[in-house]
Amino acid sequence: MAYDGTDFAGWAAQPGQRTVAGTLGAELARVFGAAQGLTVAGRTDAGVHATGQVCHVEVPVGAWTERGGTLIRRLAGLLPPDLRVLAAGPAPEGFDARFSALSRCYEYRVTDAPYGADPLRSRYTLAWPRPLDLAALAAASAGLLGEHDFAAYCRRKENATTVRAVSELSWRRTDDGVLVVTVRADAFCQAMVRSLVGALLAVGDGRRPATWPAGLLSRAERASEVTVAPPHGLTLVRVEYPGPGGYAARAELTRNRRSLL
Amino acid sequence: MAYDGTDFAGWAAQPGQRTVAGTLGAELARVFGAAQGLTVAGRTDAGVHATGQVCHVEVPVGAWTERGGTLIRRLAGLLPPDLRVLAAGPAPEGFDARFSALSRCYEYRVTDAPYGADPLRSRYTLAWPRPLDLAALAAASAGLLGEHDFAAYCRRKENATTVRAVSELSWRRTDDGVLVVTVRADAFCQAMVRSLVGALLAVGDGRRPATWPAGLLSRAERASEVTVAPPHGLTLVRVEYPGPGGYAARAELTRNRRSLL
Repeated sequence: MAYDGTDFAGWAAQPGQRTVAGTLGAELARVFGAAQGLTVAGRTDAGVHATGQVCHVEVPVGAWTERGGTLIRRLAGLLPPDLRVLAAGPAPEGFDARFSALSRCYEYRVTDAPYGADPLRSRYTLAWPRPLDLAALAAASAGLLGEHDFAAYCRRKENATTVRAVSELSWRRTDDGVLVVTVRADAFCQAMVRSLVGALLAVGDGRRPATWPAGLLSRAERASEVTVAPPHGLTLVRVEYPGPGGYAARAELTRNRRSLL
Repeated sequence: MAYDGTDFAGWAAQPGQRTVAGTLGAELARVFGAAQGLTVAGRTDAGVHATGQVCHVEVPVGAWTERGGTLIRRLAGLLPPDLRVLAAGPAPEGFDARFSALSRCYEYRVTDAPYGADPLRSRYTLAWPRPLDLAALAAASAGLLGEHDFAAYCRRKENATTVRAVSELSWRRTDDGVLVVTVRADAFCQAMVRSLVGALLAVGDGRRPATWPAGLLSRAERASEVTVAPPHGLTLVRVEYPGPGGYAARAELTRNRRSLL
C-alpha cells in the first residue's frame, strides 16, 4: 500500500476519524463481503506517509477466488486518491504482516534550502530554517546504530520493551539538495523515528554536539529536550520479510521476544 | 519560481481569483514598496505546475540594493507553501523573461498502473485507465516535431499565429513505471501541450493510429476530436535563454516575428 498521510488520522481505526485502516477496511469488506483482522506491518502516526506499507486481512476464500484477480483495479476506483493498494495476493503459509517482518525502513526528508520546500514535494518534505551539516548528521547517527534501549526516544507505554536494533541510519543529500535519512530497525516504538530525527537535526544545525543523541541512550525514560520532528517529512518505504517458509518461525520469535523483554 | 498549480487559477492576475501573479506581485510590492510590470516566460493555465518558471519585474533600485540580498528567505516566510521563489538577481541588460526566451520545456506525467497514481505524486500525475504503449507514443510524436501550424491543437485567438517550432517531444518510462513526456518548443499556444498529450494518449492506448496526431496538422482550426489532457499532469520545468549579451537581440526577433506572422 501507499498513502499520503496528510489527511489521515494515522493507520489505526478510530471512531469518527478518517484513518487508513478504517478507509481500507470498509472497501475490502464491500468487495469481499467480509474482511476481518486487518493487521499492518507499521502502525504509522497521523500525518506520516507510506510508499511500501504491508498488511494482511482475512476474507472468505470463495470471494477471493471470484474477485481477487480484479481487486487492484476495483480498489483503484473505490479508494480515495490518497490511498492506493499496489499489489495483493494470497498470504503464504504462516505469514503475519506484523510479526513475520524482519525490519521496517523509513525515510525522512528535510530541506535547508533558503526558499523552503519544493511546492510539489512540500507535503512530504520538512523545511528547516537553518543550514544542515551532512557530516555532523552522519557522525551523530553512527552512535545510535545497534541494539539499545531507546527509552529516551519513545513515548512511555506500560509493560512494553523499548529495546530496539537500529541496523541503518544513513543520510544523503539528493541532486535537488534535499537531505534524506534512511532509518531501519527490527521495529520502532511510537514516534521513535521522529524523535531520532529531531535530536539529529539539533546536531545538524549546530545547536548540539555530535555526541548528544547517543548520550541520551542511557536515560530510562523519554528525554524532554528532544523535539519530535513533524510527521509530514516521514514515509514508511519498505518492510522486509524472511524468504518463503520463514514466516511462521519469524512470527513466533517476534512474539516470544516481545513478551520476554 | 516553482509552484503547485492545484490551488491557483493559473498565472495571470484576475480579480477575485487566487493566481500566481497576483500572489507573488502582492508580496514583491510589500517587500520593495513597489513592483511593476511582472512578466512571465510561460503563462501557465489553472492547475498547471512549474518547477523552473522565470519572470521579471521592475522594483526601485534603492529597495533592491537594501533588501535584494535577503529576498529569498524573506519571500519564503511571506509566500504560501505552494509558491516558492528559488533564486533572484538583477536582470542583465536587455533581458525580458517572455521575449528573450529561446524555448519553453514542459513535462507531462501519466501512469497506466492498474492501481492508479502514487498518492504522494497524484497532484502532478494523471492516472490513465488503460495500458499505454511507449513505442506507439514515440512513433506518433515523431510526426509532430518541427515547425508547423498547430491550429488543430490551439484555442482560437484573433490575429495570433499558431505556427510553432516543436524541437522535442520525447517519452520515457521512469523506474516507478510512470510515463513522462518532455515537450519543448519556441513557444506554445494556450492549452497546446495538453492538446498534443491528449491526442497522443489516444494513440498510446490504441484508439487511434500513430499517424493521426500529425494528420491533424493540416487543419486550419481547432480539432474538436482532440481531448485536452487534464492540467494537473503538466509542469513547466525549464525556460531556455541565449547566453549573456543575446537577450535584447532575441527579444527584438521574437517581437518582430510575432507581429509578422
